[in-house]
Formats: sequence, structure tokens, C-alpha cells
Amino acid sequence: MKPFFKLKSRKELQDLIKEFSPLEAVSADIAEALNHALARDIKSPEDLPPFTRSTMDGFAVRAADTFGASETQPALFEVTGEVRMGYPPDSISLEPGQAARIWTGGELPGGSDAVVMVEHTQAIDASTIEVSRAVSPRENTIQKGEDVQKDSVVLARGTRLRPQELGLLAGLGITGITVHRQPVVAVISTGDELVRPDSPPRRGKIRDINSTTISALVRIAGGIPVNAGIVNDSRQHLTSACLEALDMPADMVLVSGGSSVGQRDYTIEAFKAVEGSSLLAHGVSVRPGKPTILARAGRKALVGLPGHAASALVVFCLFVYPLLKRLQGFILPKDLYLPEITARITSNYPSQPGREEYLRVSLKGNSPLPDAEPIFGKSGLIYPVARADGLLVIPRDSEGLHAGERARVMLLP
Amino acid sequence: MKPFFKLKSRKELQDLIKEFSPLEAVSADIAEALNHALARDIKSPEDLPPFTRSTMDGFAVRAADTFGASETQPALFEVTGEVRMGYPPDSISLEPGQAARIWTGGELPGGSDAVVMVEHTQAIDASTIEVSRAVSPRENTIQKGEDVQKDSVVLARGTRLRPQELGLLAGLGITGITVHRQPVVAVISTGDELVRPDSPPRRGKIRDINSTTISALVRIAGGIPVNAGIVNDSRQHLTSACLEALDMPADMVLVSGGSSVGQRDYTIEAFKAVEGSSLLAHGVSVRPGKPTILARAGRKALVGLPGHAASALVVFCLFVYPLLKRLQGFILPKDLYLPEITARITSNYPSQPGREEYLRVSLKGNSPLPDAEPIFGKSGLIYPVARADGLLVIPRDSEGLHAGERARVMLLP
Repeated sequence: MKPFFKLKSRKELQDLIKEFSPLEAVSADIAEALNHALARDIKSPEDLPPFTRSTMDGFAVRAADTFGASETQPALFEVTGEVRMGYPPDSISLEPGQAARIWTGGELPGGSDAVVMVEHTQAIDASTIEVSRAVSPRENTIQKGEDVQKDSVVLARGTRLRPQELGLLAGLGITGITVHRQPVVAVISTGDELVRPDSPPRRGKIRDINSTTISALVRIAGGIPVNAGIVNDSRQHLTSACLEALDMPADMVLVSGGSSVGQRDYTIEAFKAVEGSSLLAHGVSVRPGKPTILARAGRKALVGLPGHAASALVVFCLFVYPLLKRLQGFILPKDLYLPEITARITSNYPSQPGREEYLRVSLKGNSPLPDAEPIFGKSGLIYPVARADGLLVIPRDSEGLHAGERARVMLLP
Repeated sequence: MKPFFKLKSRKELQDLIKEFSPLEAVSADIAEALNHALARDIKSPEDLPPFTRSTMDGFAVRAADTFGASETQPALFEVTGEVRMGYPPDSISLEPGQAARIWTGGELPGGSDAVVMVEHTQAIDASTIEVSRAVSPRENTIQKGEDVQKDSVVLARGTRLRPQELGLLAGLGITGITVHRQPVVAVISTGDELVRPDSPPRRGKIRDINSTTISALVRIAGGIPVNAGIVNDSRQHLTSACLEALDMPADMVLVSGGSSVGQRDYTIEAFKAVEGSSLLAHGVSVRPGKPTILARAGRKALVGLPGHAASALVVFCLFVYPLLKRLQGFILPKDLYLPEITARITSNYPSQPGREEYLRVSLKGNSPLPDAEPIFGKSGLIYPVARADGLLVIPRDSEGLHAGERARVMLLP
């Protein structure tokens, strides 16, 4: 007889992720830090911008001198100089009624507090302009420290470094930072029936799909996959493969397969054979994905995934993705989990209560919610998975959804 | 005086992307092809699975022999053998009333057409079982070719290769494919006031933000960024830098800066100096992002981006991102453009009609639509951009939005 599982809920299993600590912080150059998590808060060493700048091409003025200016009653200004881009305008200091030519990004000269756009001026002669619109103090400028103030925390530990965060660091002169190391993940497929994708299978054999799918998912989650090959259904071989992977050293071992009782037992026994390991979960009440195994050995994670490609994908997205993100030091739910949207299911879908179900859907339209069309097909098939945009969540206690009902959809990467 | 722009609409500029052809197809191993676009249709060389398989641990039977079986009236079967995983069950051929032990993934033996789950059986003695539930033909099996039929087109040219598509290819034994080459993108920043991020700026200078931000965006869009450095405001230097970048050879040159009239003219003149170039657009009616330049020289793209980091980001997301995706052979709008969702704006926001406005927002909640909270701040600032999750679109002819109104939001990568 199959053993009965003591199933954990999705939430319980996701909460176990907190048992794992982020990996060590390492130095990184901002040019190579895209999508890593900051290991420490970043304080600004200086004001940005370091001086008050113009945001327009035009003329630096004292705003008060423009008050009341209009098309019919323009204000007259004497042009006393030009701010040269990239140089401090130390030679210029405006007196009342004076203006200085300035370009976008130029430093405001002494005495000025605003910029008049060139479009609102008219040259009268070589050194005189008319200004046809009033400006208020600070108009068309960015003040010293307006973007970032010296000593303020600009980016917090755990922040995902997107292009704009990297640009902010560049602007502050911070080109070297610390991020959490990427986890190395050994990917193992088990099954006597499996051959490598590049081998012609003899009769009775089938090509291994999971190594390819799971390695690519690891890469998407920010990990470094190492294909540790195919292991046959043998306790001893699987145990050796896990121990070798940890010696590599891998930070996580992902074993897929083991749909049959024997194989599943071997995965558990292989994990138990790892020194200092403890079993955190064996079975989760999601469909597909029930025969999931999670264990920990020190800071290392040992995960058993179902053998079917569709089931392995669901379990990866729900549990392994956030665990890999956690190891990389991410903190916010939006960085830990795949994004979810609300959609409308397009047809009736009955579900068996008791387990949260993850239904493959393709998404269409957007007005205002996208339509989610169920993709039918057994979880042992890979082609229906290749047609899916997301996984629609049917709650644990629901008997199904009616066409037109709203549901959450986790977007596949 | 500034020249007046003949502005193109967003749609007109996006349509110009079709003037560019995808780059050459190159060979790739599936292990390295994640997120590339297939250069050719893929036909399946074989059936998947290659034989009819069990999806359960249990017993292969003739379904008809189970008809009428129940808990109270179980059907008796003689167990004649076991299907060994990974081997063809040639030695087994079921007669009426016979069953064979089988595991998940095992090949159905001759004479059988269904599988009874082990949970619905009871061993009577070493070679006899009781079956307590009827199965229909094909139940608990995956038929030969049920996933993919030989000679069918499984993946079309232009398909983005996600983990599941790569798994499908692995399952079919297709480990070598052709994808479109990644574009090499030279990133140039212009401005006399700019210094490299790792240099302490002298007074009047400011650190270059755009090289960092734009290089990271290029990487996200699947391109290979090459930092071609900072060029001062000189027609001659900018022209040389563009020509050198094209000789590298780069497939695209991205020049940012040129907010001042002189600089903008230099960018246009540098693009004109490229042999065989033609100017496709100069100015686009979006806010921010008006001073955008697009030119083509043969198969190469020349793009002038605004100097402000926030404006450059908008223009990149709207035009450069899809252009880079097009060069990589993507076809579907969902692969060419950044994703958009519908959200509700949380506060009133007035907009000036005439240009489509892209407002930075942070997104919160999801019930059923997320809240989009405007992030205020001049486009010359970088910090507000680092707080944004998306860009909310205010239509061209709108005078603004009221709190609670629905709007489209383009999600930042």
C-alpha cells in the first residue's frame, strides 16, 4: 500500500521558506548586479544633484524680476553671459534685471533662482532679451539635493536592483556594492525509464524532460543550475548523487521523479542520509503537486519534485521559486513570488474540494480583466504546459468555478 | 530658436519597428536558448510518448474485465507478471481475467488497455488481486502520440522559448535548434557635463546615469550592451563614436542626451553621416520623451533618446524594447511589448491634452484591480523612477484622470 501523506497547506509550506537564510554577501560591480538583491542598506554619500541645475534651455534669472511679465508687457533683461556646460559659472553673478544663457543640466549662476524657457523669450539685440512669461522661484530647476539628500538611505537591504536602481547608484558614484551570492542548484532526474534528451531512446525508455525544464526555471529564479544527470531507481545511487551534489558544493538539490512509491521512498531516504538533515514536509495539498518533499541540511535545501513535468512546474513556481529568491536575499513578496493578476475564467470548471488546484490557462484580452481559458490535458503531458500563460488558482474548499467568475492567476515566467 | 518638431504618435513610431528585419538565425543548444525566439517552425520527428504509458502505480488490465466491479462485488484477476520500468513488456500478453503489475510511466503490455490504481486493489494471494472499481478503456494511461503527434508543428517560428517549450523540445530529442542572434547595442551618453560613475565629478560636472540604466534595460530586452562611453557635445566626436560603434559591429546605436538644441542637432547629424542612413522619426508625441530620434542604416538601428533618465526609460520601454525584440525574431505582441494591466488611479491627476502621458506609479493590492499611486517628481530626477512599478498611460486627448478611474499601466521590467 502507498503510505498516507500528512499534507501541508500551500501557506504552511511557503512559511517554511523562512527556515532558510540568505546566502553570503559578495562584492559586485553595478554593471553585473542587475536583478540581484542588495545585501546592505545604501546611504547616499552626497547630494544629488550636487548643485542646482536647469531643466530647460533658456535663461537663468531672478524670478522676482519676471513677476508681472506677459506677452503684452514683457520684462527686459540684460544678458551678461552664458553658463558653459560642465563648468561652474563662477564668473557670473546676476544683479537685478540681468539674465545668463543656460542649457539643460547647467549649474545656476550666483544671484539666479529660476530659469525662463527660451520659448518665452525674444532677443532684442546681442545683449538684451524680452521675457513674456513670469516664473516663480525654483521654476525649471532641480535644486541641490532635490533628487537625493546626503546621508539618506536611498535603497534598503533586499531591494531588487532594476535598471533604475542601478542608475541611481551610478548617479551617486556607488559602482561597487554587496549582493547575496546566487544559489548553485543541482538538478537530478530519477527513473529507470529515462534517457538523456540527446540519446535515442530504446523501446520502453523515454527522454528526460525535467532536467531541461527545471534547469531553465532555476535560471529564471536567479539560480545557477548544474545538471547532475539521470539517476536510476536505486536508493544507493540516489543517495550518492545527492551527497556528491552537496559536495560540489550545491546550495540546493532538486530531485524530480519518484512518482512511484519506491522512488519516492528513495528520495526521502537519500535526503535522510545527508548529515544533519531534517525533513520539513512530505506532501502538500495542492493539485497537481502533492508528492513534494522539503528537507534542510544546515543552510542547504533538499527538494523532491513530482515526476510529471506539469506537476513539477507548479511545485517549482509555488515553492522553489520563492525559496531561491529567499536564498538570494529578497524580502518583499513582489520579489519573492511570481506575479499574480485577477482574470475571468471563460468556461465552467469543476474541482474536487480538499486541495488547492492550479489550472493551466491561456490569457487573452484586458478589458478590464483578461480572460483565462482553461487548457485541458493530463499532468503527464508537456504540450499543454507549453500553451499556458498562467496557473489559475481554485481555492481549497471550492467545488469549481462558473464561466465568468473572477479568479487569481499566477503568471508563468 | 528651437526647431519645431513634426511629432509622430506612439503608434506611428511603433509601426516603424516593422522596417527592421530580425537578425540572422544561429544554431543553439536548448540548454542555452532560454527566452530566445525560434527562427524556424519545429516539426515533431516522432510520437510523444513513443508508447502508451501508465499514469499511475497499479495493474494493467483489459478494461472490459473490470466492468461492474465494486467494493461489494470486486472482480478477481490473476497477476501474470510485472512491467519493469525502462524495458518493453514483450514477455507479457494479457488474456481475459489477467493483470500485470505496472508503475507510473511504464509501458502497457499487450492485451491491456487501461490501468487500475493500486488503491483500488487488494492482494488475495501472491498471484491474485481483487479490483474494487471499474475502469474505462484508456483510463489512467497516456496514449502513444497523445502529447505530440509525429510530423505535427509543435512550436512555430517566433515562439519565445520558456522552460516548458525547452522541455517539450528535450522530450522530442531536439537539443539543437536555430534562434535569432542577440543584437549588440552600443550605448553612448552625450554631454559636456558628464563624467563616468566611478569618477569624482569636478564642480559643474555630474555623473552619467543613463549608460548604466540603458545598458541594464538592453540586457533585459535580450540585447548585448556595449558601453561606448561618454562623448562631449561635439558634432565630430559624436559622429566618430557612432561610426566606430557600427564598425564594432553593433546592430544598434543608442545615443542618450542631447536635451539641448545643439546636442540634439549633433545626434541627427551624426546619424545622417552614417552611409545609407535615413531618418524615420524626429520627435514623438508622448510625455516625457518628445525629443526621440529614430534612423535606419541598412539593417542597423540608430536611436536618439532624451537625456533625462526618466524620459529615456519611457522611450526605451515604448520603442527600443519592442525594436530589440523584433531584431531577435519575436512576433507576438505579448513578446514584443512590455506587459500591461488595468489599474485604478488613487488620486486626481490633471494632464495636458495633445501628448500621451506616461505617469510613474507604484502598484498596491489586487482586488480585483491594483491601485496605482502616482509618484510625483520632475523627469530630471532618478529617485522617483526607482520607486515606480509601472507607467500609467493617460490618453492623448485626456485632460486627466479622477481618483478611482481605470487606466492601463505598463509594467516596468
